[in-house]
Amino acid sequence: MLPSSPTRYGTEGFAGMTAEIIAVGTELLLGDVLDTDSRYLSRKLSELGISLLFRQTVGDNPSRLAEALTLALSRSDTVLLCGGLGPTPDDLTKETAARVMGVELVEHAESLRRIEAFFRRSGREMTANNRKQALLPKGATVFPNECGTAPGCAIEKEGKRVLLFPGPPGELVPMFEKCAVPYLAALSGAVLRSHRVRVFGLGEAAAVERAEALLGGENPTVAPYVGTGEMHFRVTARADSAERADAMCAPAVEELCRLLGSAVYGVDTDSLEQTAVSALRAAGKTIATAESLTGGLLSSRLTSVPGASGIFSCGVCAYSGEIKQSLLRVPRETIARTGTVSRETAGAMARGVRALARSDIGLASTGVAGPDPLEDKAVGTAFVALADGSETFVRALTLSGDREKIRFLCASHALDMLRLRLAGKSPGERLADDDKESF
Amino acid sequence: MLPSSPTRYGTEGFAGMTAEIIAVGTELLLGDVLDTDSRYLSRKLSELGISLLFRQTVGDNPSRLAEALTLALSRSDTVLLCGGLGPTPDDLTKETAARVMGVELVEHAESLRRIEAFFRRSGREMTANNRKQALLPKGATVFPNECGTAPGCAIEKEGKRVLLFPGPPGELVPMFEKCAVPYLAALSGAVLRSHRVRVFGLGEAAAVERAEALLGGENPTVAPYVGTGEMHFRVTARADSAERADAMCAPAVEELCRLLGSAVYGVDTDSLEQTAVSALRAAGKTIATAESLTGGLLSSRLTSVPGASGIFSCGVCAYSGEIKQSLLRVPRETIARTGTVSRETAGAMARGVRALARSDIGLASTGVAGPDPLEDKAVGTAFVALADGSETFVRALTLSGDREKIRFLCASHALDMLRLRLAGKSPGERLADDDKESF
Repeated sequence: MLPSSPTRYGTEGFAGMTAEIIAVGTELLLGDVLDTDSRYLSRKLSELGISLLFRQTVGDNPSRLAEALTLALSRSDTVLLCGGLGPTPDDLTKETAARVMGVELVEHAESLRRIEAFFRRSGREMTANNRKQALLPKGATVFPNECGTAPGCAIEKEGKRVLLFPGPPGELVPMFEKCAVPYLAALSGAVLRSHRVRVFGLGEAAAVERAEALLGGENPTVAPYVGTGEMHFRVTARADSAERADAMCAPAVEELCRLLGSAVYGVDTDSLEQTAVSALRAAGKTIATAESLTGGLLSSRLTSVPGASGIFSCGVCAYSGEIKQSLLRVPRETIARTGTVSRETAGAMARGVRALARSDIGLASTGVAGPDPLEDKAVGTAFVALADGSETFVRALTLSGDREKIRFLCASHALDMLRLRLAGKSPGERLADDDKESF
Repeated sequence: MLPSSPTRYGTEGFAGMTAEIIAVGTELLLGDVLDTDSRYLSRKLSELGISLLFRQTVGDNPSRLAEALTLALSRSDTVLLCGGLGPTPDDLTKETAARVMGVELVEHAESLRRIEAFFRRSGREMTANNRKQALLPKGATVFPNECGTAPGCAIEKEGKRVLLFPGPPGELVPMFEKCAVPYLAALSGAVLRSHRVRVFGLGEAAAVERAEALLGGENPTVAPYVGTGEMHFRVTARADSAERADAMCAPAVEELCRLLGSAVYGVDTDSLEQTAVSALRAAGKTIATAESLTGGLLSSRLTSVPGASGIFSCGVCAYSGEIKQSLLRVPRETIARTGTVSRETAGAMARGVRALARSDIGLASTGVAGPDPLEDKAVGTAFVALADGSETFVRALTLSGDREKIRFLCASHALDMLRLRLAGKSPGERLADDDKESF
């Protein structure tokens, strides 16, 4: 359970339609594959305002699949099946669905042409099993597969409908976006639009408390969601057009931004790194990173954003004290006096890498990721610093979690300092002058 | 479907026990949360030799949960419920399960003491709702929660049993390992042991073809699984003791290693980076990295392994040509002649960072991650180089996928070169002498 009640339209539904998802595949029941398809489909149904009441998972077993499908059809008017459309004898979803719905399979000429073309393009030989993939339930609405061989489809009968999708996410997602979204939207008659207000640096409980007045609404709905070290609010409105739904969201989004202040790092952005890279590009500034604790994760997150090469000049991953001194010019005296895990060393690293790379801003991390303590400092002790020539700022952190989480949170704090400084806001405590002079 | 048939014991079962998983939570049906619990539980049941025939997902709705649980109990003898044990009024899994099983809830003194102690430790105030978490079905086997407040339990009646677990993976996983595994193992009477043979540098089809003779067995079973740019075989045996099951796996593991040769990077290791760090530690050697394409991902993967500080001296993330020249001493002439995306530049970067860090080995990447081409080179063009003082090796790669995948695969190739060189095997083509001399 989420601590606060999320929007309910996913189970209660706006549009009066009810749906159920059945994921098919023995590999799911063995735990070898994580079922991301069901989550993706759940989210899309929620956005479409269609109530999802149950999900089921079955193996590649026709009788158990028929049992699950019959049950789903008895309580929902739309059933989405994913997986089991492949060319092997184990793949029997289509045959089973056709049998349960009482329709026969016929060869679909257009799908056969597509499959043949797919094999010509890839230079592989087409087998008789692949030809089987062109068999589709008679009268079905066909969803062409532009990324693989198995087409999807929708079978309709007596007010119920069964939608079939291939299991690989790389095929399911584009097919759903292109074919199933318009198909289902036409049935539900409503448009849902969502906007995300992303928050860093404010605990979930505190953020929810500030936003409390907005959380009870029906249309738009406002719901909090928790991530790793951050959270966001999702604002969702339903209307008869996307423009109208967006207009209904706008006041709630604005009010959230006002209530949460500088903790809001973006609206409808993907991540802190995206916000940071956009802000650097907008300011025409460059950045360099000096990483100890984060070991390259900070530069990796920055450069994961397309176009980062325009703003990122150089990153130094300085695990040893020697490299901190020789390359980043952290004074030997600073390390001797405060240790490698200190605000002074973090500040000197940020200034050092800025000078080395001749960039506008230097960003640095040092700390203890664990599993063992370092220099008598506990696991989770970390310092992040930003230097931009006029000032040096530091954050002293006490992070909890495993090694991976501590590294991630520390990199997030560095990105947060960066975007705050670029927005003209205070990113942390100012490092005292005497520490600067020692540089 | 996996292209080749995976082991079937997960659905057919060794031990005659059948199970079903029900994941509870409206946030799952909204698609806000990915259901990793069901996958974890599926894998554990498979390892225990217990047949999992169905999984279901329902929201925080007592009547639909009761419907799902009643159905599950009608066809399986063990039902695992996860989620909905929290303190809020929405959390009704325990109440619903007790009602369906016809047992009453009573306060469990030991659990109450644990909850009170948890709040004392964390310095937070305990509410009446938290006290509700100490109510447990009368006569249940209690699974203490060492990482949170909600205890789990097993309710038994008339040959059927319902197991309850908290939803947060950080609470569910340790509880399952410590309490549920011995509870279920005692019921099933068989022990399963699995070993993974990890493969890099051999396509899945080619690996499966080489291992074909091993794939048909019943006990042990051998099954292939595909990851990002790599794959592994899982060898699983069932016996009456762990030692015996391990002994039954051993010949198949050895035969796989023989058939797949140097493409096997480890048995029962977690990742390429773990293998690489272990090999460096064993050899007493240090590494430095120079990254362009991978932007810090390579150093981040190396330093994600605990204890990496002993072998990792320094990483330079050199996105610009200027930094490649000033810091890594890549000759201006090399860049002018071959471009920044070339085998010669990769080799010079590896040698340059090795000299800069005074490490035993230098490892470098350069290439085009996309979305746009660079220097007339297509997205996915990449070069990875390793220099160790006596030789410089390069791999020229043509990678496909999105930016994230290209970066990941390129880092994997660098790690693969490293582990092969440390094992005395050829990691790639030798860089010609004239290119070395230009350094």
